[in-house]
Amino acid sequence: MADLTLYSARGTCALATHIALIEAQADFELVLLDFAQQAQRDARYLALNPKGRVPALRTPHGVLTETVALLAYVAQAFPQAGLAPRDPFAFAQLQAFNAYLASTMHVSHAHRPRAVRWADDEAAQRAMQAKVPQNMRDSCAFIEANHLQGDWVMKEGFSVADGYLFTMTGWLAGDGVDMAEFPRIAAHHARMLGRASVQQAQAQLDAAELVAHV
Amino acid sequence: MADLTLYSARGTCALATHIALIEAQADFELVLLDFAQQAQRDARYLALNPKGRVPALRTPHGVLTETVALLAYVAQAFPQAGLAPRDPFAFAQLQAFNAYLASTMHVSHAHRPRAVRWADDEAAQRAMQAKVPQNMRDSCAFIEANHLQGDWVMKEGFSVADGYLFTMTGWLAGDGVDMAEFPRIAAHHARMLGRASVQQAQAQLDAAELVAHV
Ligand SMILES: N[C@@H](CCC(=O)N[C@@H](CS)C(=O)NCC(=O)O)C(=O)O
Ligand SMILES: N[C@@H](CCC(=O)N[C@@H](CS)C(=O)NCC(=O)O)C(=O)O
Repeated sequence: MADLTLYSARGTCALATHIALIEAQADFELVLLDFAQQAQRDARYLALNPKGRVPALRTPHGVLTETVALLAYVAQAFPQAGLAPRDPFAFAQLQAFNAYLASTMHVSHAHRPRAVRWADDEAAQRAMQAKVPQNMRDSCAFIEANHLQGDWVMKEGFSVADGYLFTMTGWLAGDGVDMAEFPRIAAHHARMLGRASVQQAQAQLDAAELVAHV
Repeated sequence: MADLTLYSARGTCALATHIALIEAQADFELVLLDFAQQAQRDARYLALNPKGRVPALRTPHGVLTETVALLAYVAQAFPQAGLAPRDPFAFAQLQAFNAYLASTMHVSHAHRPRAVRWADDEAAQRAMQAKVPQNMRDSCAFIEANHLQGDWVMKEGFSVADGYLFTMTGWLAGDGVDMAEFPRIAAHHARMLGRASVQQAQAQLDAAELVAHV
């Protein structure tokens, strides 16, 4: 049994942590929950992660959740991979970028597939879904103007933030946003598609069997 | 001029960073934006923080945003205050708690005062506002069951997470949730009200003049 187990699902934000683990050359097992069967709400999974979401990472010390925490944890547990700047201020900037994705951009996206979280009324859910392209576009414009000044999110070089941004930009087409409007974001997405870790994550997601119970 | 300047506004999540700075005994200046005058969207503030939100912290190295990043930064910049556990796994758990507040509980609350972010239609905004009590209650139930096993959020002791949780629970009454339903949360809120840092933050907020331009 590997030291680490990542609980993920296809098409989700867990991809960011998955890419980070591969970049870190961590020894981990991938467990792919079948969302169609509501595997994330199964009692055995809830015992492990009462939030009923992915990602969750089982470690020898306990289970961790939340992408922002997981990305920093992977970077700090595998320092030789250089996935986060060591300078405290640059590290805080990386955390700020990731926290923005988690609390603003991911939330904007979630109003399309998960509108039901924030209103019971179906007309209201449709009204939320209608605003998703504009909110995703606003986040892209913010990132295009303030980050990605070189090849990567952070001027210090490749970091865990790149796999996280790639995960978000992979949702843009489904959210009705044409990435071509944002040349730096489009170039970053293409650059990531060529990266070995991203290709390996994709191959692992394609090969893994979906589970209904952990 | 102090080394650090915190841009805040009354009634906002910036209170969490404000409490952390006081706990850290940091030398900082408080600038209180007048949201009624849309000070957060003023060109000079946007030049400093293009997100047009609070908190923002001006440091000698540059401006930082996002509560999750700021709380970790304050804890790490003032290690003698002991505001975050040093053990890497416990630190990750602290970050996971803060990331949950930022990406789930704060977002649930924001659907009341800021519903306009996620739908243009007024009936949809009202439908979102109607669901806020339930979502805030769900977050309280999660925290009550999984944290606060002793006096503080983290079993390791008082941390930056406590001021952040206090900030969220200060919103409950306005969000239509009776804190008394959650005895651990109610006791934590009362404990925080008695804490010197919280009283000092309140006094500073009461005394500060609102500014329309930074
Ligand atoms: N704040 C969490 C969000 C986790 C989250 O919402 N995950 C989604 C997939 S992207 C999920 O598991 N949804 C399942 C559900 O809502 O039932 C993070 O950043 O990790
Ligand atoms: N993800 C950010 C959220 C910041 C945020 O939304 N701040 C609110 C106050 S609680 C704000 O400045 N709102 C002003 C506006 O929307 O115009 C954080 O955690 O710091």
